[in-house]
Amino acid sequence: MKVAIIGGGQLGRMLGEAAHPLGVEVRFLDPGHAPCAATAGPVTQAAFDDPAALAELAAWADVVTYEFENVPVHAVSGLATPVYPPPQALEAAQDRLREKRFFQDAGVPVAPFAPVSTAEELSAAILTLGLPAILKTRRMGYDGKGQFVVNDAEQGRGAWRALGEVPCILEAVVPFDRELSILSARSATGEVRCWPLVVNRHAGGILQWSEAPAEVSPELQQRAEDTARRALEALDYVGVLAIELFDLAGHLYANEMAPRVHNSGHWSIEGSITSQFENHLRAVLGLPLGDTAMASAAGMLNLLGTEPPLAELLAVPGARVHRYGKSPRPGRKLGHVTVLGRDLPEVRARLGALRRVMHDATHGDP
Amino acid sequence: MKVAIIGGGQLGRMLGEAAHPLGVEVRFLDPGHAPCAATAGPVTQAAFDDPAALAELAAWADVVTYEFENVPVHAVSGLATPVYPPPQALEAAQDRLREKRFFQDAGVPVAPFAPVSTAEELSAAILTLGLPAILKTRRMGYDGKGQFVVNDAEQGRGAWRALGEVPCILEAVVPFDRELSILSARSATGEVRCWPLVVNRHAGGILQWSEAPAEVSPELQQRAEDTARRALEALDYVGVLAIELFDLAGHLYANEMAPRVHNSGHWSIEGSITSQFENHLRAVLGLPLGDTAMASAAGMLNLLGTEPPLAELLAVPGARVHRYGKSPRPGRKLGHVTVLGRDLPEVRARLGALRRVMHDATHGDP
Repeated sequence: MKVAIIGGGQLGRMLGEAAHPLGVEVRFLDPGHAPCAATAGPVTQAAFDDPAALAELAAWADVVTYEFENVPVHAVSGLATPVYPPPQALEAAQDRLREKRFFQDAGVPVAPFAPVSTAEELSAAILTLGLPAILKTRRMGYDGKGQFVVNDAEQGRGAWRALGEVPCILEAVVPFDRELSILSARSATGEVRCWPLVVNRHAGGILQWSEAPAEVSPELQQRAEDTARRALEALDYVGVLAIELFDLAGHLYANEMAPRVHNSGHWSIEGSITSQFENHLRAVLGLPLGDTAMASAAGMLNLLGTEPPLAELLAVPGARVHRYGKSPRPGRKLGHVTVLGRDLPEVRARLGALRRVMHDATHGDP
Repeated sequence: MKVAIIGGGQLGRMLGEAAHPLGVEVRFLDPGHAPCAATAGPVTQAAFDDPAALAELAAWADVVTYEFENVPVHAVSGLATPVYPPPQALEAAQDRLREKRFFQDAGVPVAPFAPVSTAEELSAAILTLGLPAILKTRRMGYDGKGQFVVNDAEQGRGAWRALGEVPCILEAVVPFDRELSILSARSATGEVRCWPLVVNRHAGGILQWSEAPAEVSPELQQRAEDTARRALEALDYVGVLAIELFDLAGHLYANEMAPRVHNSGHWSIEGSITSQFENHLRAVLGLPLGDTAMASAAGMLNLLGTEPPLAELLAVPGARVHRYGKSPRPGRKLGHVTVLGRDLPEVRARLGALRRVMHDATHGDP
C-alpha cells in the first residue's frame, strides 16, 4: 500500500512514522530542500501545485493525502488517484467565511461574525458585533498568523491595512472558559471514531500544551462527537478531522477545523490505543479504524523556538520526546513532548515540570 | 547523538524507529542486501566482523551497539568508541556453558547441566542428568536452532552427530508451569529499570506469543528483578538485557539471556510507558531511563511464516501491527502484532482472535 503525502513537515513525518510498522510506503511532495519528513520517506522536491510532480506521485500511490490545509484545490482536483480528505473539505477549511457558513449549515454554533471586504464593511461589522473582536483574513491563516485582535475602531482600520485589505471576516470574541478540540476519523467505508475531547492552551495564537482526556460530562463529549459526525458526513469526509471548540459554560462553539492530523492530537501517539496518525492512514486506505480510547492520561507540550537539553526532558517521568530535526527560530515548532501518567493530576504535575524545563531553556535558569 | 547498530534485522529496525523521534541518528552494519532495518537508517553492507567497516562506523558514532548476540567479540574489542552492552556480556551469552556458569556464580538457579565435548561425555551426562534432556550446541544457537530433545541414548548419539559433534551441553528438562522473561535496562550511569514479568509461549523453539504483565506475586516479581540486577551488575552491563526464566511452582530457573532487545519485549512499544527500544537507546547514550510501568495490559503475537491480510489483523480491537517487510519463508518472523486491552482477560480474548486469524492464514480457513 502506497500513500503520497503533500507537505513534508512534522505532520507528514509522523504520518510516515506511523506508516512504517504497517508496511505502508509513503512519499512526500514538498518544495523545501531536506524538509522535516525526509527522514520518513522519499521527497519529491517541487511546488505543492506542480502538475507533473503531482501526476507522478498520484500514479505511484494508491491514495493521495496532505498534511496542511492550504493545498491548492485545483491542484488535487482531477488526479487519477483518490485524494482524501476530499477537495470539498479543503474548500470549506481554506476560507474562514465558507467554514463558518459550513458549520452553521451543519447546525453547529459559531461565534457571531461578518464578512469584511471593504473599509465600510469593517465599520459596519464593528457596530454589529461590538468589540473586542478579531479581524482575520479569509484565507491562508494558521497558528495565529493573518489575524489581529481589535479593541477600537482605529485599531480596526490599522489591522485592515496591516492584513493588506484582503477579504477578511470580523469575529466576535467568545469569552470561553476553555478551548477544546475533538479529533475524529472517518474511513472510506463510512466507519467513524472520535477520540476523547482534548483541552488546549494557546498563547500568541500558537498551541502551547494540551491535556487529555478533558474533564467533561459524557453528555458534552457526546455533543462534541455529534458535531464531528455532522461535519464528517456533510463533507463525505475520509481521514482525520480536527475541530477546535470553545467551551462557554457548557455551550460549545466551533472555532475552526483542520482537514488533517492536528497538533492537539499528538498525545495520541502514546496516550491512545490508536494514534491520529495511524487512524488517518487506516481511514484513507479503507482499513478498519483502530480503538480511540485512552491508553493512559496524557499531556503534550510543544517545544517552541528552542529545545531544552534532551536529558532534562527525559528525566521527567512518563515523558516521550519527539524532535522534528528543525533548526531553531523564534516561535517555531521544533518538537513536542508527550507525558503520560496514571491520572490527570499526575499528568498535570509532570506537564508542569516539563513547562518549567522549557521556560528555563527559553529564558535562562535564574 | 549517533548510534551504530551491528545487525540490520527487525530488532535494529525497531531501535531505529525508537531513535527517530528522539533525534538520535542510527546507522546499521549488515552483510545483507537491503536488510529489514534499511527503512530506518543507512546500512553499511559488510560482514559483521569487517574491520574497516566497523572502524568507520565507530568513528561516526557516539556509541556502538548490536541487535544480536553472535557478534564476534574480537571484532568489537578495541574499537575507538564505547561498545554497549560490553563485550563481557557477549562472551557470557554466546557460550551456553559460560552462560550457565555465569548464572551459577551470580547465585541464580539453573537447570542441571553438563558439558559435552565427546561421545563419552554425552553418555556420562545422560546417566547423571537423566532423560529427557536437551542437547544444545554451546555456540550460535537461537530460536530453537542448534538443539535437540533427547529421549533415549540412541537419540542422544544421533543428535550429537546431527549437531556436528561440536562442543555442546546437555541440559535437564525443567518441567515448568510457564515460561517467563524479565526485561531490564541499565544505563551507563548505573540506573536500573525492570519491566513487569512477561509470560511467553514457545513452539518449536520459537516464541509464538507473549502477554504482560504476568500474573505473579509482588514477591516473585521482586525475585526476578533481583536476578536481573545481579546479572546486570556482575557484567557492568549497559543496555537492555532479557533473561528467560522457567517458573516451576514459584521457583525461578534462568534458561538463557540475550544481551539485547528481545522478542518477548516487543509489546512494550505500545504496552509500556517506555519501550525496550527507547530505553536501550537511553541506556547506551547515558540518558535518564524511562518509566517501565505498563501503559495497559498487552499481548504480542509473532507473525511466523505468513502474514494474514492486514485488514483482518486491524479489525481486532486494540491491535497494533508491525510488519518487517520481509519475504515469507516457513517459520520466519515476518512481523508481530501487539494487542492492548483494559485487563488480561480482554487481552487474552483479543490475542485469541488474532491467533485464529493467524491460524486461518497459515492453514486455510476451512
